[in-house]
Amino acid sequence: MSQKLLRLLPCLEWGREYHRGFFASDLLAALIVTIMLIPQSLAYALLAGLPAEMGLYASILPLIAYALLGTSRTLSVGPVAVASLMTATAVGSIAQPGTIDYATAAVAMAMISGLMLLVMGALRFGFLANFLSHPVVSGFITASGIIIALSQLRHILGIQAHGDTLLELLTSLSRDLAAFNSVTLATGAAAMAFLFWARSGLKPLLQRLGMSASSAGMLAKAGPVVVILATTAASYLGDFGARGVALVGEVPSGLPAFSTPSFDLQLWSDLFVAALLVSVIGFVESVSVGKTLAAKRRQRIDPNQELLALGAANVASAVSHGFPVTGGFSRSVVNFDAGAQTPAASILAAGGIALAALLLTPVLFYLPKATLAATIIVAVTSLLDIQVIQRAWNYSRSDFIAVITTITATLLLGVELGVLAGIVASISLHLYKTTRPHIAVVGAVAGTEHFRNVRRHNVITHTNLVSLRIDESLYFANVSYLEDYIYQLIAEIDGLEHVILQCTAVNEIDLSALEALEVIDHRLREQGLTLNLSEVKGPVMDALQKTEFLQHLSGKVFLTHHQAVTSLKRDDIEPYII
Amino acid sequence: MSQKLLRLLPCLEWGREYHRGFFASDLLAALIVTIMLIPQSLAYALLAGLPAEMGLYASILPLIAYALLGTSRTLSVGPVAVASLMTATAVGSIAQPGTIDYATAAVAMAMISGLMLLVMGALRFGFLANFLSHPVVSGFITASGIIIALSQLRHILGIQAHGDTLLELLTSLSRDLAAFNSVTLATGAAAMAFLFWARSGLKPLLQRLGMSASSAGMLAKAGPVVVILATTAASYLGDFGARGVALVGEVPSGLPAFSTPSFDLQLWSDLFVAALLVSVIGFVESVSVGKTLAAKRRQRIDPNQELLALGAANVASAVSHGFPVTGGFSRSVVNFDAGAQTPAASILAAGGIALAALLLTPVLFYLPKATLAATIIVAVTSLLDIQVIQRAWNYSRSDFIAVITTITATLLLGVELGVLAGIVASISLHLYKTTRPHIAVVGAVAGTEHFRNVRRHNVITHTNLVSLRIDESLYFANVSYLEDYIYQLIAEIDGLEHVILQCTAVNEIDLSALEALEVIDHRLREQGLTLNLSEVKGPVMDALQKTEFLQHLSGKVFLTHHQAVTSLKRDDIEPYII
Repeated sequence: MSQKLLRLLPCLEWGREYHRGFFASDLLAALIVTIMLIPQSLAYALLAGLPAEMGLYASILPLIAYALLGTSRTLSVGPVAVASLMTATAVGSIAQPGTIDYATAAVAMAMISGLMLLVMGALRFGFLANFLSHPVVSGFITASGIIIALSQLRHILGIQAHGDTLLELLTSLSRDLAAFNSVTLATGAAAMAFLFWARSGLKPLLQRLGMSASSAGMLAKAGPVVVILATTAASYLGDFGARGVALVGEVPSGLPAFSTPSFDLQLWSDLFVAALLVSVIGFVESVSVGKTLAAKRRQRIDPNQELLALGAANVASAVSHGFPVTGGFSRSVVNFDAGAQTPAASILAAGGIALAALLLTPVLFYLPKATLAATIIVAVTSLLDIQVIQRAWNYSRSDFIAVITTITATLLLGVELGVLAGIVASISLHLYKTTRPHIAVVGAVAGTEHFRNVRRHNVITHTNLVSLRIDESLYFANVSYLEDYIYQLIAEIDGLEHVILQCTAVNEIDLSALEALEVIDHRLREQGLTLNLSEVKGPVMDALQKTEFLQHLSGKVFLTHHQAVTSLKRDDIEPYII
Repeated sequence: MSQKLLRLLPCLEWGREYHRGFFASDLLAALIVTIMLIPQSLAYALLAGLPAEMGLYASILPLIAYALLGTSRTLSVGPVAVASLMTATAVGSIAQPGTIDYATAAVAMAMISGLMLLVMGALRFGFLANFLSHPVVSGFITASGIIIALSQLRHILGIQAHGDTLLELLTSLSRDLAAFNSVTLATGAAAMAFLFWARSGLKPLLQRLGMSASSAGMLAKAGPVVVILATTAASYLGDFGARGVALVGEVPSGLPAFSTPSFDLQLWSDLFVAALLVSVIGFVESVSVGKTLAAKRRQRIDPNQELLALGAANVASAVSHGFPVTGGFSRSVVNFDAGAQTPAASILAAGGIALAALLLTPVLFYLPKATLAATIIVAVTSLLDIQVIQRAWNYSRSDFIAVITTITATLLLGVELGVLAGIVASISLHLYKTTRPHIAVVGAVAGTEHFRNVRRHNVITHTNLVSLRIDESLYFANVSYLEDYIYQLIAEIDGLEHVILQCTAVNEIDLSALEALEVIDHRLREQGLTLNLSEVKGPVMDALQKTEFLQHLSGKVFLTHHQAVTSLKRDDIEPYII
């Protein structure tokens, strides 16, 4: 079998080595994931503003598509919180929730996003994900989690609040607060309380009841299902519908019908940017989960193949009337912990969801929406990473600015502008830093051939020369800073004959920088000085040798800085103080 | 006098030391610049699609404003070719040339651009100009020069062609070509022929006629004035107007009246992007000319003060019914060569233009537009720097791509998209390169403490450790590349115990990179390996010490790479071949 085919269809590889031992593990993992995915898929459909059955539909074919194409053995693909919120925001701006247009737009968004991911994968654009820095992603997911939790409060309270940003949500919630429904609130609050408790208290309880640690751990994941069953029963018995509690209502029974998503050009152009953002965010989230899990078992994730697999999953979601999907963090971890060996676990889980869609939907009629909102709120609290602000603050000012910009923009302007602001801020900050490179005047550490910053170490310097270590590649954005630095420095030092640039940290000299070095060299020569370079790296030297710069240079290029200083110095001074 | 005031008003500094010797030099330079500026100002008004007198208006107050505020002693501010073309493109998209709305929009554009420059100066945003790389600027100006020359061909031919891009201009020219006017063509062609000849032939001729080299050189700059006088006389005597030759026509005599530019919000928002681009391009062009000239006389240019000075010049242009201005290359060089000592030369030149506006306008009635077009075409040919393509091609692929993108986009999409494409391309290419940093496996040069790339040098290595020199700062966009590189490397080498990262070229480790290093360290530890760092720079070490990374590190941090290798190695191998 050709290597190329194996790379395009990773399922051929694990399929060949599949055996009965794998199947037992995969089946158990699939069972647990299914139990977890049923409430999640319903809840994320609610979050996306869509009918409950679309959550189930988005959890069948996409899982199979990813299982066939994905490089992660344990990633669980399906509806996730952030992508559902982004879908709600984008689709909500062009259609009214509850309408056919709204559902059509959500399906179209999955289609656009899927095609974009496929195209990016074909172009091998996986590296683009690198531009979403980790603090930005953490900040974005944290802020999105806050927005999600607030947006679900209305279902817990049984009121009509809405909004895409912190201010809109808070204003809307406080205005409608008085109209809360007490039965809804009681249901939601009880569900939340149980779920929060179940996270830490259910496993020990089950163990005390005699269950093994691993079985107890797995059964504890069924908390949301327990809550759903309990509140559905209460709702049925207590006739919650008549008491003003919003119920999920009629959910059509059966498997999704294949359908062609809308190809309305206007709709596609309206959703283009949002689909791009949900694709990129979903991809980054998914790959980072996949990498974390793969590392634990010494497996590898191929980002470009992941683009194809997630693209196929979204197209599969769209043609089966689902909405945008991606790899989810919590489900994947559960799948991994439950012992899933291969993506066959996901195929089995898809079968479980299909069974649920066929058989369980009549039960869902009485399910209070407040229960689903409670599962969402409890789920997103695990996404909140407020500490990232503290870590960034302690570590560096620019990381802090990037995180704060992302969080503030996401909370105040919404998810789309939030993630864009984060990307722009982190790239701009990085570029800004490189425009003002760290330049150190260096001197020799006594008795060695090593040179260190004169401000940090007691080093030997010389009256007739100055050694500069430039801690950055030289390129168009920072050459004028270097020019100004050198001109100012030589104006301050009397008796100077030589300037030596130690190029250990200069990884590139682009054409603008080369031209600037020519200007600097020319100007130094006019003033009776020479410009010398030392420790120029191989790739940089290769480029310089293609030009006439080295022939015209007033000074020389030395292999080591020590050689440069030894051959140019007239005396030694120790210590050197600026 | 306070230093701050001196910095804000550089004229106070040169004003204090002004003396009679300066005045004689400045007066001579002013005379020559005035003679050069009269045809240029008329021609660039034509290029901008504006009435001729607006060229004169833009050459009076702006010169005085810059003279008072600018840090260059010799820069000649006024209408320039590229800014005039950009004005024509932007204003032409919202109003019809020849209408009052068109002139109003051009004046508003000068006002917006002036205010933007003032704001950028107040915010000390001079560094932003660094993001326009030199090859991009050269490419942009070259492509603009081609567009300008083609756009002026219609005046030489006496036809109605128009367009903002290469294709539009070529299509339009070829369609209307047959309708050319022979008298116009003869005038334009003769003017061009004389001007091209005058550039190289006039000075030697004058010298042969007994003039000194310097006088002959200066008088040769009067070529455009000679052409204007000659063709105006021919037009008057030969009644060119009746023969279908387009003439400049009625030019109101007198100084510009002060007027308030339009503050129409719709107009301002339509012109916003174009004004920003003309501001930035004008600023970059102007500062680069100013720097070149200042360097020759050991003077300094302060980019932030230049923003204020150019801002004031544009506001001055707007309130005196002019259009966007900036520092021009050819005029500044002439001013410098003619011996201008201080900006007083520009104030005197402004006086010269004011006199021209008062006295010379009746003469301009018979001036053929073809003559002005000829002066523009001859002037822009000196801007063409086709060699930049060759230089970039020889030097580096990314510089070449940036130049070609800029030139192609400018020619095919117009000046605004052209300059944006250039900026985006050069920044993207720079970022892309940093996402795939050069990483070298290094070994010791025998008998020294220096380490070099094993692929380029014969060096000593060791079986139980691998030394990696990372030639780039570690930041969010390149950490996953580093991760993949290290994992692949350690999978290939048997018997490995230690990985040492030589951090000489790592100028920054951001929070994402720190987290990635923690992951790498964790994974190496799991495989029984240690991660070590050597030659970490001061600023990077300061940041790392604020975290717990160093305490958890499986290996150590060594001051020099030599120490690291000496303390960790078990044996020596020479040479090392991968």
